[in-house]
Amino acid sequence: ARWAMWREGGARGAALLFGLALALEALARLLWRRRGRRAPVSEVLFFPSPVTCTEALLADPLAAAAASSSPCPCLLPHGESALSRLLRRLLSARRSLELCLFAFSCPQLGRAVTLLHRRGVRVRVVTDSDYMALTGSQIGHLRRAGIQVRHDERGYMHHKFAIVDQKLLITGSLNWTTQAIQNNRENVLIVEDAAYVTPFLAEFERIWKEYNPTHYTFPRSSNKKRTEHLFRAWRGL
Amino acid sequence: ARWAMWREGGARGAALLFGLALALEALARLLWRRRGRRAPVSEVLFFPSPVTCTEALLADPLAAAAASSSPCPCLLPHGESALSRLLRRLLSARRSLELCLFAFSCPQLGRAVTLLHRRGVRVRVVTDSDYMALTGSQIGHLRRAGIQVRHDERGYMHHKFAIVDQKLLITGSLNWTTQAIQNNRENVLIVEDAAYVTPFLAEFERIWKEYNPTHYTFPRSSNKKRTEHLFRAWRGL
Repeated sequence: ARWAMWREGGARGAALLFGLALALEALARLLWRRRGRRAPVSEVLFFPSPVTCTEALLADPLAAAAASSSPCPCLLPHGESALSRLLRRLLSARRSLELCLFAFSCPQLGRAVTLLHRRGVRVRVVTDSDYMALTGSQIGHLRRAGIQVRHDERGYMHHKFAIVDQKLLITGSLNWTTQAIQNNRENVLIVEDAAYVTPFLAEFERIWKEYNPTHYTFPRSSNKKRTEHLFRAWRGL
Repeated sequence: ARWAMWREGGARGAALLFGLALALEALARLLWRRRGRRAPVSEVLFFPSPVTCTEALLADPLAAAAASSSPCPCLLPHGESALSRLLRRLLSARRSLELCLFAFSCPQLGRAVTLLHRRGVRVRVVTDSDYMALTGSQIGHLRRAGIQVRHDERGYMHHKFAIVDQKLLITGSLNWTTQAIQNNRENVLIVEDAAYVTPFLAEFERIWKEYNPTHYTFPRSSNKKRTEHLFRAWRGL
């Protein structure tokens, strides 16, 4: 009888332990989800983007206080657009921004990057040596603002990606030009998934190292130019 | 005493039920994982790609049997490359392939698409009206093979994406040209995630509908050409 009692007591203890373990697990899961485990960002933007006013996003912090009471009086629509969403994602940077851009001439995007630099975000830019000289290029502005920019020496540096705070990848077909934003069919993916962010970060670091200015050749050897007749049809791709 | 016995019995029963439930859950999870719940594809390819032989992938099914016994005797390396991985992903199509490509002149990729068409995969192609005429363009080959191709009338159709079997998205900076594959720094993301595939499918269907040949104007109005002097620097972007 004692043995049976002991057995029964053991079973009851086991049941209690099981129940307790389950309750604890459920509680842990609930807390885990509540505390900052928001769903990772996954967004797609398509262009052309309608032209909208982006002043509210890009205003200087000092001017912004005044602006918040009196919204921009310009005649452009003030709603959201693919461009404003892209700007918002970029402006969310708090620590670092890596840019790897074939062509960069959109003034709003240029202002956003300069703003981040002034806020103390570490900005690094890689661009294509041929396209950094195009009309309206933002590369000169960035360099004058004190942002480090490196460029390639051969082939086309055709990437168009940004990495925000080492955890958000922004990439697609879109070159950062007003022409592309307003006229072309383009896509931009916004991805917060290490499976994609990690290899892109590694690619950026590879390029950053390879395009170190100490490796530049003067006068520029311009392998591109030499083979250009072969690829005339491909100019600018 | 009876009451105590009943209580103990109840506790034992509860313990058994708990144990059984846990075991069943573990079993169900195991089966769920085993049976086809492989991890979704997430891959990144970077270019330039080393030149490798892709004959084994692209050989006709009839010729392939013979080829398997005698590998391609060409002098190119026969290992994997970014291009061969891209080809493999495309050739995995069993039902449908949507292509939305700014420029398409890479002969290996052209062969892969024609091969899929001959295997009975429903292939639909959208391309840019200016770039479909470039040297080495595959668009003419595809049309002659009986594949439906539609092109835009204005702006640049600058997308570079493919959708395999409505569930795998292949997109990035890469135009499907030998120049880009062998010389440029480019990226391609391979994504099996409805959060990205669904909007890209919708974008394809929108474009496919909009570029219906019954909407073409003859002679082509060529809005592009008219504004080209404004964007001369942007040619080919």
